Amino acid sequence: MFSRVLAEFVGTFWLVFAGCGSAILAAGIADVGIGWLGVSLAFGLSVTTMAYAVGHVSGGHFNPAVTLGLTLAGRFDPKDVAPYWLAQVAGAIAAAALLYFIVAGQADFAGTGGFATNGFAEASPQNYGMVAAIVTEIVLTAVFLVVILGATSARAPAGFAPLAIGLTLTLIHMISIPIDNTSVNPARSTGVALFAEGPALLQLWVFWVAPLVGAAIGALVWQGLEDGYGATHPAE
Amino acid sequence: MFSRVLAEFVGTFWLVFAGCGSAILAAGIADVGIGWLGVSLAFGLSVTTMAYAVGHVSGGHFNPAVTLGLTLAGRFDPKDVAPYWLAQVAGAIAAAALLYFIVAGQADFAGTGGFATNGFAEASPQNYGMVAAIVTEIVLTAVFLVVILGATSARAPAGFAPLAIGLTLTLIHMISIPIDNTSVNPARSTGVALFAEGPALLQLWVFWVAPLVGAAIGALVWQGLEDGYGATHPAE
Amino acid sequence: MFSRVLAEFVGTFWLVFAGCGSAILAAGIADVGIGWLGVSLAFGLSVTTMAYAVGHVSGGHFNPAVTLGLTLAGRFDPKDVAPYWLAQVAGAIAAAALLYFIVAGQADFAGTGGFATNGFAEASPQNYGMVAAIVTEIVLTAVFLVVILGATSARAPAGFAPLAIGLTLTLIHMISIPIDNTSVNPARSTGVALFAEGPALLQLWVFWVAPLVGAAIGALVWQGLEDGYGATHPAE
Amino acid sequence: MFSRVLAEFVGTFWLVFAGCGSAILAAGIADVGIGWLGVSLAFGLSVTTMAYAVGHVSGGHFNPAVTLGLTLAGRFDPKDVAPYWLAQVAGAIAAAALLYFIVAGQADFAGTGGFATNGFAEASPQNYGMVAAIVTEIVLTAVFLVVILGATSARAPAGFAPLAIGLTLTLIHMISIPIDNTSVNPARSTGVALFAEGPALLQLWVFWVAPLVGAAIGALVWQGLEDGYGATHPAE
Repeated sequence: MFSRVLAEFVGTFWLVFAGCGSAILAAGIADVGIGWLGVSLAFGLSVTTMAYAVGHVSGGHFNPAVTLGLTLAGRFDPKDVAPYWLAQVAGAIAAAALLYFIVAGQADFAGTGGFATNGFAEASPQNYGMVAAIVTEIVLTAVFLVVILGATSARAPAGFAPLAIGLTLTLIHMISIPIDNTSVNPARSTGVALFAEGPALLQLWVFWVAPLVGAAIGALVWQGLEDGYGATHPAE
Repeated sequence: MFSRVLAEFVGTFWLVFAGCGSAILAAGIADVGIGWLGVSLAFGLSVTTMAYAVGHVSGGHFNPAVTLGLTLAGRFDPKDVAPYWLAQVAGAIAAAALLYFIVAGQADFAGTGGFATNGFAEASPQNYGMVAAIVTEIVLTAVFLVVILGATSARAPAGFAPLAIGLTLTLIHMISIPIDNTSVNPARSTGVALFAEGPALLQLWVFWVAPLVGAAIGALVWQGLEDGYGATHPAE
Repeated sequence: MFSRVLAEFVGTFWLVFAGCGSAILAAGIADVGIGWLGVSLAFGLSVTTMAYAVGHVSGGHFNPAVTLGLTLAGRFDPKDVAPYWLAQVAGAIAAAALLYFIVAGQADFAGTGGFATNGFAEASPQNYGMVAAIVTEIVLTAVFLVVILGATSARAPAGFAPLAIGLTLTLIHMISIPIDNTSVNPARSTGVALFAEGPALLQLWVFWVAPLVGAAIGALVWQGLEDGYGATHPAE
Repeated sequence: MFSRVLAEFVGTFWLVFAGCGSAILAAGIADVGIGWLGVSLAFGLSVTTMAYAVGHVSGGHFNPAVTLGLTLAGRFDPKDVAPYWLAQVAGAIAAAALLYFIVAGQADFAGTGGFATNGFAEASPQNYGMVAAIVTEIVLTAVFLVVILGATSARAPAGFAPLAIGLTLTLIHMISIPIDNTSVNPARSTGVALFAEGPALLQLWVFWVAPLVGAAIGALVWQGLEDGYGATHPAE
């Protein structure tokens, strides 16, 4: 169990350090900044790379909502949910703390600002409200779980799941950064919220509830896809 | 059949939600917007990711022109064309409706505008005319079908088809967004046209006829590639 | 042979239509244009996608320099070089002609300008001279051949060669577009030169000689890598 | 041994020529420049492409820190470290010399400037200090080694390691270019430092010490992941 928990810690650390880190450090620099496309790639590729590295150790969740969805789909042992969630949140906090240390060392440091937190209303990058954020998080986390459950199913081509899953997370960010800076991952939202200025901690419940609800719906939709498959290919 | 139709619905939903969604929500934001490169990647990767997730359920068409081309090439049962087309159009409309709901919830909402619809003449992003749009759609859909038929053929490396197909859709957008905002997919064109302002519904016939004609031509070209192969490698 | 020549025609058509097309149509549009990063991805992914689609038909060269290098390395039958070169040049010309047709149909068409041709001195995007262009083309084509020969060798992981080769072409463009708009492919240079304004036809010889020389050097370097391997792993 | 050393020379040449070259030649051009996202992709894809091409010859390190980390993890013969390091540094210097030759041939050449060197304080792209640079280099090189050791382990999906490793290097750049222009590779830092203006040579020791320390830590972390795996899956 130690190695699996360590893998989830390291993987979620990487997700937050690469994803939120690129957003905080490199996204908005004039002329050469990586922009939201770069940030979207950073979040997605952090999952792709760590899933190839330690996916065979822990399964490569790096996200409490993913752990929940896999559990509801019968792919993960319910008694391991708690240690996984703890490792994920701890990894996210460690990454956020390191980012804070780096940013605070800059010559002209003047506060963390939004610090890549998730938010709606006045905290939304483009002024979207709470309802839009909740609906978007639910729908996108549901799609995320459908891809995760589908790409790791026995009938999908072997080895490509980390690519499919990471690129889905990239797409999710390409759509929803303008809305609420994109969570679909409560651990990621929690880590940076602890160090940010603004309303991130007050709004944090949304980025736990909505992704978890979305993950449950995604597990349900996948059941429909898989059951149907069983029904129409009975002899396989 | 239920699972296959559900997979086409979900896949086409994702194509329109990710592709048109990123165009509407994130493409043109100053400094950090994802631009046409981001939108091109969004359309392509939506197909790549869903093809890995549910390609083994439905074949992963997500596009009436693809379904037609595969049928003409003898790879798909003609009697399943109608349910696939219906599921694809329904998935596209559902995604467009959800995008409308999200956009209309923005504080300073002032109408959907073009809403990522396809168009020519005054509706072309760079003022290309109807003939340019029709020729471009035919050629690009033909190339798309050649890649789909080739990359999924038995002699191509297994497992890579979703990557090859999705990246081809990305390339198609990188060329033709300036011309007509890129269709090659009548379902995608139909979904957003129902919610847009401007001439999208009047011009919609072009984005049904041209992709379907292109798909037929692509199936024909592939026949030339495959037949020739059989002729020169008879003993294999 | 018909299918193989057709595959080279279609593949080189796609390389020029996607690569030069994205450069001409979409690179420089204000705010949302795809820039040189997009053009670099377009050239590379055109090879990746077509190599997955028709690589098993023709080998997927799409480039006279590649055909020469493979021949010198003993991987291709010398008597097939001429039909391959003809098909490649014909495909490139067809793509350039179609691009001309599309561009000329734009409302405010005012000449083809550089038309994504290769050039040096006054025709270099950033004022590099002939020597810089020649040296760059030789070195980059040599690297290109090393990757092609290495990634398609029996000991490399199967199925990944189209990705490795296409991404190498992307990298080549990311370095050398500023220098001479990047050739490493005489067919690509020839196709657009026929329709361009400026000195492209006069300078075209450079983009035949340098890539062909580079391909020969690449084949030689690979020989050193492969021979050495044989010498140190004799018992395999 | 000749072929392995040649492979490391060619691979590190490509890493510096593509990565530093794209930074020097193409990153900052107005409107169409590839920016830091392009440079990040260039470094990462240079490793991906060469690892597919010559990884089966030399292992594809292209980096003294990687060679050290693999040695400490018991995956590489200690007596081969010296020739590998020499080949890597020689390849990096050769690439930097060629870049100098190309840049110096530009019509309005006015000195090499930073020449894509690594640096902190006044040499940091965004004014980060020495401590931030050292911490960042250590952490990112440690993550790099975890991915390298994990993705090439026997239980990871075969063939995908070059993708996972290269994309990790891309992510590393997306985070840390603003801090110190990103090293994690002492050979890369050394090559360009010899031709640059500014304090690069004086600061070079940091970009040897920090990556080597980070690689050792990464090898240690991986041991925890792997040992744990052995402990919890004893019967496999």
